Amino acid sequence: MAHQKVQDPNYEQRVRDSFARQQFMATLGASVARVTPGEVLIAVPFGAALTQQHGFLHAGVVASVIDSACGYAALTLMEPGAGVMSVEFKVNLLAPAAANRFVAVGRVIRAGRTITACQDELRAVQDDGEVVVAIMRGTMMTVRDRDGITD
Amino acid sequence: MAHQKVQDPNYEQRVRDSFARQQFMATLGASVARVTPGEVLIAVPFGAALTQQHGFLHAGVVASVIDSACGYAALTLMEPGAGVMSVEFKVNLLAPAAANRFVAVGRVIRAGRTITACQDELRAVQDDGEVVVAIMRGTMMTVRDRDGITD
Amino acid sequence: MAHQKVQDPNYEQRVRDSFARQQFMATLGASVARVTPGEVLIAVPFGAALTQQHGFLHAGVVASVIDSACGYAALTLMEPGAGVMSVEFKVNLLAPAAANRFVAVGRVIRAGRTITACQDELRAVQDDGEVVVAIMRGTMMTVRDRDGITD
Amino acid sequence: MAHQKVQDPNYEQRVRDSFARQQFMATLGASVARVTPGEVLIAVPFGAALTQQHGFLHAGVVASVIDSACGYAALTLMEPGAGVMSVEFKVNLLAPAAANRFVAVGRVIRAGRTITACQDELRAVQDDGEVVVAIMRGTMMTVRDRDGITD
Repeated sequence: MAHQKVQDPNYEQRVRDSFARQQFMATLGASVARVTPGEVLIAVPFGAALTQQHGFLHAGVVASVIDSACGYAALTLMEPGAGVMSVEFKVNLLAPAAANRFVAVGRVIRAGRTITACQDELRAVQDDGEVVVAIMRGTMMTVRDRDGITD
Repeated sequence: MAHQKVQDPNYEQRVRDSFARQQFMATLGASVARVTPGEVLIAVPFGAALTQQHGFLHAGVVASVIDSACGYAALTLMEPGAGVMSVEFKVNLLAPAAANRFVAVGRVIRAGRTITACQDELRAVQDDGEVVVAIMRGTMMTVRDRDGITD
Repeated sequence: MAHQKVQDPNYEQRVRDSFARQQFMATLGASVARVTPGEVLIAVPFGAALTQQHGFLHAGVVASVIDSACGYAALTLMEPGAGVMSVEFKVNLLAPAAANRFVAVGRVIRAGRTITACQDELRAVQDDGEVVVAIMRGTMMTVRDRDGITD
Repeated sequence: MAHQKVQDPNYEQRVRDSFARQQFMATLGASVARVTPGEVLIAVPFGAALTQQHGFLHAGVVASVIDSACGYAALTLMEPGAGVMSVEFKVNLLAPAAANRFVAVGRVIRAGRTITACQDELRAVQDDGEVVVAIMRGTMMTVRDRDGITD
């Protein structure tokens, strides 16, 4: 799409550096799997420490990696110096999140000057393929000139 | 409201037992603060392990405690033997989540036979009062007769 | 709340003038019932021309008046010359919309410089009181310096 | 997807008959453009009677055709005798809805026994192609054994 133009040639390192400052991603054991303009993939392994009461991945973990993937997908298209913050997101949980590994695929739908619409899906990686267990759509904001908010 | 009738007199213990099986809540350091019919409060302290890149509570942590509080608010009104699962939720992030302690207040809006609409807010507890930093609305489902899904 | 400060003393007339330009509101038979800072009420009578297949008010009509009420609630707090546009909204339909008259109550939750979070509920007005049949939360945007977008 | 199996061979006529009972669709000038298993397209022409204050299609009209398209996409997969109702939906407005004609494409994402997740997009049909101006995701419910709710 016309709007998905890179403004910062250093976008990949910028995403990886900012991700490294998200201590919560380390808590989850999540890692950046791929960064391309307008798209970021974040992987998270299953672990007992991340479960809800029935033994599946907690919906909050789902939301966490999905939110980070979307936010960083948006960041790939922002000008140097700007920061990214989540305005809102909605998650639909389609199936129990049961697998050994999950990948969140965050993508920019439309990047405006201040507002970026994005979507995401969480895929359960299984022996015989991938199954989408959750989908998300959200709004990210480009923050400028605010102390401490830069990425 | 008429729909918020308790069907299981043991609702509080039931919520606390199910919460104790959510290992992810222990990972976050979250605890059940209060259980009443149609309303559950979950508290979570701030910690560096829960932060996003600017040092605030990660939106995923916000979503996690909010989702659990809503799900358990719905569970307080379900018949014995049923289980609760999240269908969808939307979170609006109103302000950076900066405080030493947060409380999620989940409430049932309308409990139907299969579908429960609920809402939640995350309050940052500060010396001079509480500030709502995020709000959520979501849909919870009453699950019956499915192996392993009981609360 | 601190953010809900009026910047345009002419806010009520401004809302009413802009509403009068929404030809779709006339198509629905909707009217502005009340305008106060950060809150706008829009009324719509039931009519066969507004129904879905079971004879209730169509969810799209619900969304229409709810969206207008929220947008105009946001506009009451904007500076002169700015325009308002909807970024996103989510509607939960709680009960069939069956009544002779409905009122949408749109309220600002938090007004930022560019982004305003708001919520809304649609009340069915019945002989013995009002019942909330739908709830909404959404994001409105303050538009500046764009041709044709002023309210 | 495995879940998108037709249970009613008469699904197309069933959708068209139910749509014909939605008087609000006639008010909008909307028509069913195509019905296939798990997908329904609804077209609506631009008209001054459908506008918001800047002369674009009102967000409520967008939501209306999107909601109907999603609901009927869900209905194509339901057993005979069941009815469909909207539980919730979220709309993201990506660009002003300016064109002579619009098409809403509603699709089932996952059809469960009671709950169907679906998505939709509204395309502005222009001389040189189509532009997506709004996207939606929502939850539809299969209603059984309730008086007057059959499709």
